[in-house]
Amino acid sequence: MSNMANTIFEGIKKIEKQLGPLSSAQKILLATDGSVTTILDVLTGHVTIRTLLQEFRSADADMAGLMDVDEGATVNYRIVVIEGKEPLIYAISIIPVDRLDNEFKEDLIRADIPIGRILKKHNIESRREIISVAVEESSQHLQEIFDTDSLMLTRTYNIIHKDQLLIWLKETFPINMFRE
Amino acid sequence: MSNMANTIFEGIKKIEKQLGPLSSAQKILLATDGSVTTILDVLTGHVTIRTLLQEFRSADADMAGLMDVDEGATVNYRIVVIEGKEPLIYAISIIPVDRLDNEFKEDLIRADIPIGRILKKHNIESRREIISVAVEESSQHLQEIFDTDSLMLTRTYNIIHKDQLLIWLKETFPINMFRE
Repeated sequence: MSNMANTIFEGIKKIEKQLGPLSSAQKILLATDGSVTTILDVLTGHVTIRTLLQEFRSADADMAGLMDVDEGATVNYRIVVIEGKEPLIYAISIIPVDRLDNEFKEDLIRADIPIGRILKKHNIESRREIISVAVEESSQHLQEIFDTDSLMLTRTYNIIHKDQLLIWLKETFPINMFRE
Repeated sequence: MSNMANTIFEGIKKIEKQLGPLSSAQKILLATDGSVTTILDVLTGHVTIRTLLQEFRSADADMAGLMDVDEGATVNYRIVVIEGKEPLIYAISIIPVDRLDNEFKEDLIRADIPIGRILKKHNIESRREIISVAVEESSQHLQEIFDTDSLMLTRTYNIIHKDQLLIWLKETFPINMFRE
C-alpha cells in the first residue's frame, strides 16, 4: 500500500480506536480524493459557501515550506463554511497566487464558489494528496460556527496541478455530523 | 448548476422516486469524481481486482463515437470485479491504446491493479465527467457474480487526461449493497 493510503487508513483506524466506529460518509469525507462539494451536494442538496475571510498574505517560513514557495511570496488565504441548511464543513485554503491563471483567480477571489466547482468550471485536471487525517479538540470559533462543542474530524490535503501544489486545504467538521 | 451536476442529481432523484431512499454510501459511489478504489478501501478494507476479461479490440462505429477515436482504432477492453471479502463493483473500462504511455499501459494490461491506484502510482492529473447514473435490471452474468437477482445501480463516466478521453468506465453494483 502507498504511503498516502497508509496515512488515510491508519489515521481512520486510530480515530475509531479512540472514539468508536465512524460512519461510511465520515470515512469517505476524510479519505476521498474527489470533490467534497459534489459529495455534500449529493448528501444534503445543493451546498453554498459563506466566506469568513479572504485575504492576501505574505508567506512566512512555515507557510513557504508547506506550499513550496519562497518566503515572502503572496498567497491567497481563505476561510469558508460550506453549508446547506446548516454549516457542514469549515475549510481553510492557501493558494500561491502566482500559480493561478487569471480566470481561476477571479473566481477564487470574487465569488463565493466552492473550489471543487471552480476546478470543474475551468476543466482543471488535478490530483489530490491526503497529508493527514485526525481528530481535534474544538475551539471557541468552531463551537460558535457549528453550535456544538463536540470533537472535530479534520484532514489536510494538497491539490496538485501541472506537478505543482496549487491549493493546500484543511477541512474540519464535528464528529456528530454525517453520522447516518 | 452545471449539466454534469444535473445528470447526477436528477439521476439519483429519479432512482429514489422509483425505489426509495439510497444510502449515503450509494449516492456517493454514484456521484463521486474521485477514486472509487479509495472509497471501497476505506469502507471495506483493502480491495483487489479480479480480471474477467482483458483484450484489445478494434473500435466499431459506436465505440469510436463513445471514445472519440477513429473507427478501427485499437482499444483496451477490460472487465473486472473489484472485491474485498466479497464482490463489490463490476467495472467495464475502455481505453484507446494510443493514448497510453508505456508504463501506464504495462500496469493496465499485465497486473490486476485498480485504475484509481494506477493513476495514483503514476501521479496522473485528470478529471472525471459523469455521463449517466441509472438503475438497471440484472443479467444472468451479474447474478452469478454477485449471487443476487436484485436490481443494479450503475453509472458511466469518462476520465479525462490532457484534454482527451483517457478511460471510459461503467461501474455496476447491486442495490442491496452499501446500504449501511
